[in-house]
Amino acid sequence: MNTNSLVSISDIGRDEILSLLDMARRFEENPNRRLLEGRVVATLFFEPSTRTRLSFETAVNRLGGRIIGFSDANTTSSSKGETLKDTIKMVSNYVDLIVMRHYLEGAARYASEVTDVPIINAGDGANQHPSQTMLDLYSIYKTQGTLENLTITLVGDLKYGRTVHSLIMAMRHFNPTFRFVACKELGMPAEYKAFCDENGIRYTEHTDFSPEVINSSDIIYMTRVQRERFADIMEYERVKDLYNLNSSMLGDARENMRILHPLPRVNEIAQDVDDNPHAYYFEQARNGLYARQAIICRALGIDA
Amino acid sequence: MNTNSLVSISDIGRDEILSLLDMARRFEENPNRRLLEGRVVATLFFEPSTRTRLSFETAVNRLGGRIIGFSDANTTSSSKGETLKDTIKMVSNYVDLIVMRHYLEGAARYASEVTDVPIINAGDGANQHPSQTMLDLYSIYKTQGTLENLTITLVGDLKYGRTVHSLIMAMRHFNPTFRFVACKELGMPAEYKAFCDENGIRYTEHTDFSPEVINSSDIIYMTRVQRERFADIMEYERVKDLYNLNSSMLGDARENMRILHPLPRVNEIAQDVDDNPHAYYFEQARNGLYARQAIICRALGIDA
Amino acid sequence: MNTNSLVSISDIGRDEILSLLDMARRFEENPNRRLLEGRVVATLFFEPSTRTRLSFETAVNRLGGRIIGFSDANTTSSSKGETLKDTIKMVSNYVDLIVMRHYLEGAARYASEVTDVPIINAGDGANQHPSQTMLDLYSIYKTQGTLENLTITLVGDLKYGRTVHSLIMAMRHFNPTFRFVACKELGMPAEYKAFCDENGIRYTEHTDFSPEVINSSDIIYMTRVQRERFADIMEYERVKDLYNLNSSMLGDARENMRILHPLPRVNEIAQDVDDNPHAYYFEQARNGLYARQAIICRALGIDA
Repeated sequence: MNTNSLVSISDIGRDEILSLLDMARRFEENPNRRLLEGRVVATLFFEPSTRTRLSFETAVNRLGGRIIGFSDANTTSSSKGETLKDTIKMVSNYVDLIVMRHYLEGAARYASEVTDVPIINAGDGANQHPSQTMLDLYSIYKTQGTLENLTITLVGDLKYGRTVHSLIMAMRHFNPTFRFVACKELGMPAEYKAFCDENGIRYTEHTDFSPEVINSSDIIYMTRVQRERFADIMEYERVKDLYNLNSSMLGDARENMRILHPLPRVNEIAQDVDDNPHAYYFEQARNGLYARQAIICRALGIDA
Repeated sequence: MNTNSLVSISDIGRDEILSLLDMARRFEENPNRRLLEGRVVATLFFEPSTRTRLSFETAVNRLGGRIIGFSDANTTSSSKGETLKDTIKMVSNYVDLIVMRHYLEGAARYASEVTDVPIINAGDGANQHPSQTMLDLYSIYKTQGTLENLTITLVGDLKYGRTVHSLIMAMRHFNPTFRFVACKELGMPAEYKAFCDENGIRYTEHTDFSPEVINSSDIIYMTRVQRERFADIMEYERVKDLYNLNSSMLGDARENMRILHPLPRVNEIAQDVDDNPHAYYFEQARNGLYARQAIICRALGIDA
Repeated sequence: MNTNSLVSISDIGRDEILSLLDMARRFEENPNRRLLEGRVVATLFFEPSTRTRLSFETAVNRLGGRIIGFSDANTTSSSKGETLKDTIKMVSNYVDLIVMRHYLEGAARYASEVTDVPIINAGDGANQHPSQTMLDLYSIYKTQGTLENLTITLVGDLKYGRTVHSLIMAMRHFNPTFRFVACKELGMPAEYKAFCDENGIRYTEHTDFSPEVINSSDIIYMTRVQRERFADIMEYERVKDLYNLNSSMLGDARENMRILHPLPRVNEIAQDVDDNPHAYYFEQARNGLYARQAIICRALGIDA
């Protein structure tokens, strides 16, 4: 167990979040700093996630570190029946840090308990993905100049969307107002609404993605609605285009409003939004580089 | 759009070709030069091509750069329905240069239009593969001492063979004479013969791979005849061995004649040719390293 | 052919083994030495082996070298019908060293004969895996303080187990006593018993994994019994748990006895052994890093 592991966004408090954002800002000024010279990082992707893997691997490379790992567990010893514990203990012999993605919830927490090497959770099932949350926070902070007192609208799949759940948990320190925009089948789960209530977070629920909602938001956070989430395919066909955003809907948005999306997007943001000044999702992806450099240095106890 | 992108061999003219060959020569003298220190290169192989990928990755590594990427698109976000544009814009956030291979013609051109990061086309469908052409030119130049006034015989699949088409286009600057040796089904397409006519390039067509053709060539460029190109399998069986080369056919070849092949070869060059002084295809593969180092430096605006 | 290639453990004699162990010891003291600056190593895994690949790649990275390669041959030119010879000759153009794993016995030897680049065999079918043997020897040496006059018990699949065969061959220099513990179907092949006889190596055979055997061993080397080795599935069911080790069996073991396993393990070592002071298999895996650094430097003629 290494206390520098980052398994859940709730592992770190307000001060540490702000400290990481500040470190990310310094990396944005200069991402090429050889702070990981002589260090080896494992990227263990038990399920594929190219975007996250490339972002972490860029972060390590720009810091001068080296990488070993796999991008797909099909070709690993896991397929010979090896336990996760054994795989983690084996890799721990070789590296200074493990970045892992796993299809099972709790896998990263379990891994962090069987090794002294720090673990960064790059997504465990529908559970946590704290580096995504950190880059979301950094994107909000950069575009709004603050994390305090913002109105954030979450749109799409709020039931299974790991990123929106973690964002709520992280924002509890900053007095947000949330709008939850989703169809009935994919609404925000009761436990996260209870979390809001317990933490004094204001929220409203909407089945309409209305101009009122759009025009009073500081951040609109879009997510993908996936067909496989629906038991009833007719229901999917009915709702699939209700929460799509296009440029014509943005005419009266707040000047400083920015649209985020964890990517990949499919149809939920029309191509014509890409050149709109409110679009920020590609810059958001770039922020992932700096946020992850900060998380990596924190995990290794490097003051950056 | 970055004007240093290399999508098609026709993007560069005679002077730039000669300048790249000169740069390749300097890399051959010393391939280990840390000109890419602090740079990250993406190798995005939407279709596998181990040979090309390893060659580019060696080139980057020997220049001191770092690499991220994937060798097979099956495990990427493309499989979640992400557009090529989004994938390219995402990766553009992380890297200084993108080397891409794609199964669709035009993919590299399209990619170059949606990003400011330079793109090197490592093959797009049956269309272009300009780094292969540059290494072919470098191999011809090295072995013949010039690119001017040579007789070049192209053998095998001249219909679908991307490399032979690009070679014709690049050689137009250097007054070549071509011999096209192929069966009727796989003959040189009319558009490339028209290109020759328009550019004053001499050519003759042959269905026989005869001693006359072999013995009057400076370069024999062999290609693979693939069964899947034939609608009629009987026709494939009839012609498949007509354009195979073996050592006994080389007795009266010009002393300085060299045999090229883009590799991988199957049966079209017999194993007994490998030790023949006319064989050059493995050295040709090595030249790919130097040619690609030159192309990479050109794309990044590095004077080498 | 490069005489520094390491294809079989029998390629190197007693003095060279001891010299490699000494080099491994120095790497254990300091694994981060930039002895491979400017060198590129290919890791060609024609069959997947994550553990071995990650260990070799860590070794190269900690030595400052660079890596190209593939982890699975499905996406290589081999699948286009390219011969192993051509693949090796192609890669030889790019790299200073080739580490290869292949599913066919003899593949590494053949590869070493078609190139001047040194080859390290990382496993060829059921044949040889000399770097595993070197890390086994290093683990024995470290834990026992010597390789001489030890009693080594080999347990499980002695018929197909590549690692136990190589260990016998390497230990011939050091006057060992072996115990072979296996069911009739998976007993030590006659040829290896003949090898023992010819080299004056004492051995006894056992179908029981008895306290007498355990308590008189300096090393217990466990291996996996795989279902696919049995023609008769009932026979597998009968014997599969006979050669499993758990903590309660270790009460009267020699104080300095250590348990080795090439990993991955499934059930043959119970989880409760992991915290037992006799357990050494995870440390053994770590020793693979140092042993492989030594082998790599030897292959490249680097005095380390």
